[in-house]
Amino acid sequence: MRQHHHIFEISTCGQGLYDFTAEVAKWLTSSGVHDGLLTLFVRHTSASLIVQENADPDVQTDLSRFLARLVPENDPIYRHTQEGSDDMPAHIRAVLTQTQLSIPVQAGRMQLGVWQGIYLFEHRRAVHRREVAGHLIGE
Amino acid sequence: MRQHHHIFEISTCGQGLYDFTAEVAKWLTSSGVHDGLLTLFVRHTSASLIVQENADPDVQTDLSRFLARLVPENDPIYRHTQEGSDDMPAHIRAVLTQTQLSIPVQAGRMQLGVWQGIYLFEHRRAVHRREVAGHLIGE
Amino acid sequence: MRQHHHIFEISTCGQGLYDFTAEVAKWLTSSGVHDGLLTLFVRHTSASLIVQENADPDVQTDLSRFLARLVPENDPIYRHTQEGSDDMPAHIRAVLTQTQLSIPVQAGRMQLGVWQGIYLFEHRRAVHRREVAGHLIGE
Repeated sequence: MRQHHHIFEISTCGQGLYDFTAEVAKWLTSSGVHDGLLTLFVRHTSASLIVQENADPDVQTDLSRFLARLVPENDPIYRHTQEGSDDMPAHIRAVLTQTQLSIPVQAGRMQLGVWQGIYLFEHRRAVHRREVAGHLIGE
Repeated sequence: MRQHHHIFEISTCGQGLYDFTAEVAKWLTSSGVHDGLLTLFVRHTSASLIVQENADPDVQTDLSRFLARLVPENDPIYRHTQEGSDDMPAHIRAVLTQTQLSIPVQAGRMQLGVWQGIYLFEHRRAVHRREVAGHLIGE
Repeated sequence: MRQHHHIFEISTCGQGLYDFTAEVAKWLTSSGVHDGLLTLFVRHTSASLIVQENADPDVQTDLSRFLARLVPENDPIYRHTQEGSDDMPAHIRAVLTQTQLSIPVQAGRMQLGVWQGIYLFEHRRAVHRREVAGHLIGE
């Protein structure tokens, strides 16, 4: 049984979903692990992780629009406003989605469904460099 | 240290919660693993996983009704509509709940609380056959 | 490769976020595990886990206020009301946040971002004693 670590660096330029499934798959292949558990953990509180459909890009647009309406900017209940009007909504959207994902690995492949992609969900408007910590245990 | 994999196949006939705690417990017992970590990963983007109360069935009904109102069908912001009026809401409800669950195992049992059950949350109306990938590492 | 288990007992006195990052870090250090995966699982259905900003306490207040408005008490759609007006909202808020978190460990430290803390999110008003099951695998 072995372990591997990796930091995925993802450059974002505004709110929305960033598919990094291919980068994760490439890391898995290079590790040589055939059978195990792969964990991804986002090291930020205003970006998150989701698994979603990778077929119709409208799904991603609709998701972003829904969350933008559910958690609006300039809501009068917010006290945390000094970091910009998109900051507190970003924290809430991150809490309502996922911080971490673990995916079983078998025969050298993640056990994703046919239409599943792995996305970083950026909730802030400015350019950011995001880090996702990857961990792999197996053999 | 050993690993086990299993695909749970869950037939669903409409929206709502499907308890498969007993199937997971049975698999754990048959694996012989006493001490470890059990991971469940749903291989779909319009169904999800949750841990919830297994005592009063009204809790499950209320959860379903709340999410149905929070994420309505036929919302004018949706562009992804060609797969049915329940499809885009299903993707959003899946994102707001969980894709994956990991549960510690000790003395051959999942460390669930007394009232906790493991549920597949079906978000679509039609009959489906859902797959949940199970992974177990331990000894 | 070794495993460790621990139950974190967290006393809560009302709704809100309870930071227990230091307790988790202390347990990790005492285990002697340098490289591995740390999992936390809340053993209740009316409390949950989140990773959020530990810098400005207003973020935590705003999160709580947002969820209180999103999932109100005394909603006429609830049938599960006999355990108190804060019980069904607590179940829903738990489902919309997280039941479990897994965090990679490297060089004896959790791979948290600079501003990330680990919180128990209490959704009920009465005093409670909550249990979080901790699992650690690594070497």
